[in-house]
Amino acid sequence: MTSSTITPSSDSTFTSLQNPSFLQACMRQATDHTPVWLMRQAGRYLPEYRASRAVAGSFMGLATNRDYATEVTLQPLDRYPLDAAILFSDILTVPDAMGLGLSFALGEGPKFAHPVRDEAAVAKLEVPDMAKLQYVFDAVSSIRKALLQPDGRSRVPLIGFSGSPWTLACYMVEGAGSDDYRLVKTMLYSRPDLMHRMLAVNADSVAAYLNAQIDAGAQAVMIFDSWGGVLADGAFQEFSLAYTARVLAQLNRHGADGQVVPRLVFTKGGGLWLKDMGALDCEVLGLDWTVNLGAARALVGGAENGPGKALQGNIDPNVLFAQPQQIATEVARVLDSFGKPYQGTGTGPTHIFNLGHGISQYTPPEHVAALVEAVHSHSRQLRR
Amino acid sequence: MTSSTITPSSDSTFTSLQNPSFLQACMRQATDHTPVWLMRQAGRYLPEYRASRAVAGSFMGLATNRDYATEVTLQPLDRYPLDAAILFSDILTVPDAMGLGLSFALGEGPKFAHPVRDEAAVAKLEVPDMAKLQYVFDAVSSIRKALLQPDGRSRVPLIGFSGSPWTLACYMVEGAGSDDYRLVKTMLYSRPDLMHRMLAVNADSVAAYLNAQIDAGAQAVMIFDSWGGVLADGAFQEFSLAYTARVLAQLNRHGADGQVVPRLVFTKGGGLWLKDMGALDCEVLGLDWTVNLGAARALVGGAENGPGKALQGNIDPNVLFAQPQQIATEVARVLDSFGKPYQGTGTGPTHIFNLGHGISQYTPPEHVAALVEAVHSHSRQLRR
Repeated sequence: MTSSTITPSSDSTFTSLQNPSFLQACMRQATDHTPVWLMRQAGRYLPEYRASRAVAGSFMGLATNRDYATEVTLQPLDRYPLDAAILFSDILTVPDAMGLGLSFALGEGPKFAHPVRDEAAVAKLEVPDMAKLQYVFDAVSSIRKALLQPDGRSRVPLIGFSGSPWTLACYMVEGAGSDDYRLVKTMLYSRPDLMHRMLAVNADSVAAYLNAQIDAGAQAVMIFDSWGGVLADGAFQEFSLAYTARVLAQLNRHGADGQVVPRLVFTKGGGLWLKDMGALDCEVLGLDWTVNLGAARALVGGAENGPGKALQGNIDPNVLFAQPQQIATEVARVLDSFGKPYQGTGTGPTHIFNLGHGISQYTPPEHVAALVEAVHSHSRQLRR
Repeated sequence: MTSSTITPSSDSTFTSLQNPSFLQACMRQATDHTPVWLMRQAGRYLPEYRASRAVAGSFMGLATNRDYATEVTLQPLDRYPLDAAILFSDILTVPDAMGLGLSFALGEGPKFAHPVRDEAAVAKLEVPDMAKLQYVFDAVSSIRKALLQPDGRSRVPLIGFSGSPWTLACYMVEGAGSDDYRLVKTMLYSRPDLMHRMLAVNADSVAAYLNAQIDAGAQAVMIFDSWGGVLADGAFQEFSLAYTARVLAQLNRHGADGQVVPRLVFTKGGGLWLKDMGALDCEVLGLDWTVNLGAARALVGGAENGPGKALQGNIDPNVLFAQPQQIATEVARVLDSFGKPYQGTGTGPTHIFNLGHGISQYTPPEHVAALVEAVHSHSRQLRR
C-alpha cells in the first residue's frame, strides 16, 4: 500500500464526481452502496452497440475512432445506473503498435500477422512510440468530456486499462487465442531469456501506455492479466506477477487534476496466488467466481485503517442467463459472501461488484438491469 | 479416510505386482522412488499409437475393441518404465451408453447427437444397462491378462476411470466441448432441479461403471472432474463435489482378488477447494500445475500414521517441449516442492508424479523418456 503518499484532503475526496462511489471503494473508503460495473459492459449484447459497430464496419473501426469509442463507452451507462465507465478498446492495441499487425476476422478472435516466435523477433521488440496509440488517448479525453455534467462534475469515473505483460506475450507468441498455450510456454521453458526480454519490453510499454491514459484523463487504471491463471505455480510469480509489479512501479499516482488514480489488477484464475498478489503496490484486486470473497477479504482485504486491498468481482457471467429473481438471489449470495463493507470515516475492507469475466454476447440486456438493481438494493440493505 | 476398514496384512500388500509402487503410494505407504504415470500416456504423441489408430479407423474403433484397447494401453509401458497402466477409453462412454450418440469427427472433439437440454430430455435419463459398456470391461480383463508376467505377478497395476458426474453433465448439455459452459450453466442457474436430477443419474451410473471396472480387474479407479474448475465457489461444492462424493460412497472397496482398490479424484482447476476435497472418502487427490505441492501437502497430505490424502501431479505438460536438461530441472522442482516423501513402515505423506493435464499430441516421445528418467532418479536421490 502506498497510502502514506496520499493526502486524502486534497486528492482522494473525488469532489469532481457526481457519483464517486467506485473511486471511493477503490480507496477503501465507505460508500452507501456497493458500486458496480461490468467487464465488457459496452459490447455485443447491446443492440445499440451492434448498430454502432455495423456503421463503423468493425470492432477496430469502433476502437480507433474517438467518436465511436465515446458513443459505445456511454451506451451501457445510458441503460443502467452503473457506477463506472470503462474505456472502449482492446487489450492488444499495444502489440499492434509494436508492429505485429492486429486484425479481427469476422466471427473469430484477434490475430497477429507477425507473431513473435524466435530470437530475432524478440530482439526487434521495443517500447512503441505512444503517438501510434494517440487514438486511445483521444478516446479517453473525448469520453471524459462526454461524462461531464452541467454542474461541472463528472457523472461517473472513467477506467483506463491494458493487458498485462504476460497476457500480451501470450497473444504475441501464439499469434491468436490458444487453448493450450503451447508456443508461449515452449518459449518460457526452453528460452526463458527470450521470454524475460519480451516481458520487460511489454511491462515498460504497458506502463507508458497507462500513464498516457492517466494524462489523458483516466481516473483509475486496470491491468487485465487474463492468462496469468494458465501458468504453473512458480512460473506465475516469475513470468506474470513480477512484470505486473514492474508496470505498477512506473505508474503515475495522480491524474492531471491532482486526484489519486487507483490501480486495479485482475488475474483470471489467480485465486491460489492471492496472498502473493496482496503484496502488489496497487489498490484493488479483481477476483473470478472460483474465489470465495469472504476468504479473500480475510487474506488481503485488510483491517480498519490498516493496509489492504479493495476487492472487485466476482459473479459468474452465466448467472445472467437465469431469470431476474434467480439473478437477485445469486447477487445477494455474492454480496453476502464479502460481508458488511466498511462504513467508517477512515479506510477499511470494501467491495466493488463485477462479473468474474467479461459479459457474454448472448446476455439478455434486461437481465443486466436486474443485476445492477439487485446489487444496489441488496448492498444498501446490507449496510443497515 | 476409511483406513479403519483396510487390513494391511491381507489386502494392501500388493504382492501380486512386480511393481506395486503406484498402489503403495496411493495408500500412503513408502516406496523407494516416486511412482510416475502420465494422463493420456497412450495417445497421439506416440507413432505406434497413430499406426494402431489408422488400422482401427478411429478413436472409438480403438476404444471399443478389446484387442486394440489392450495394444494401445501397453504401448507407453513398452517405451518407458512407467509405474502404472491406465485403461484406454474415453470419459464419454457412459453418456453414450445412455443413448446420447457419441461421435468423434476427425480433427474435432467429441460430439453428442442428442444433447440433454430440457425437462423432457432430463426426465428420460436413467442409469444405462452396463451390458452396453461390456466392451470397456472386456478391455480391462484383456489388459490385466496382457500385464501378467511369467512369474504370475502383474507388471504394474491397471487404473480404471470415469468422468465425474458434473463433467459428464457439461458434455451432455453442451453436446460438445465448450469455452464458456453457457448452456450447462444456464440450466444450473435457472433449473437447478433438472441439473440435480441429471447429476444424480450420472453419479449412480458412474458408480456402477467403476464397480464393473473393478470387478473386471481395475486395481485403482480415478474420477476425472475435468470441468469442476469452471464452477463458481459454492456451485462447485453443490454441483460437482457432492456428486463425486455420491459416486465414492457407492464404490467397491476391494477387487475380486481381495486387494484394496484406491480411489483417485482429480478436479482440474480445483486448487482453491483442496480443503473441501480433503474431506472426500478417497485415497488420492490429483492436482494441476497451479497448485503448490508443498502447500497442498500441508493442507491435506496428512501426518505420519494419521489420516490424509496421497497427492498426484502436477507438472505442466508444456514442460515437455523444453530440452531434456530443462525437463529434468522442472521435474526436480516439482519433486522438491512436495518435499521428502514418507519413508517409514506405516503410512504418511506420499506423492505420485504425473502431469497436471493430459499430454499434448505434439510432445516429442524422447522427451517423455527424459521426464520419466528424471522422476525416478531425482526421487531416489530425494530419499537418501
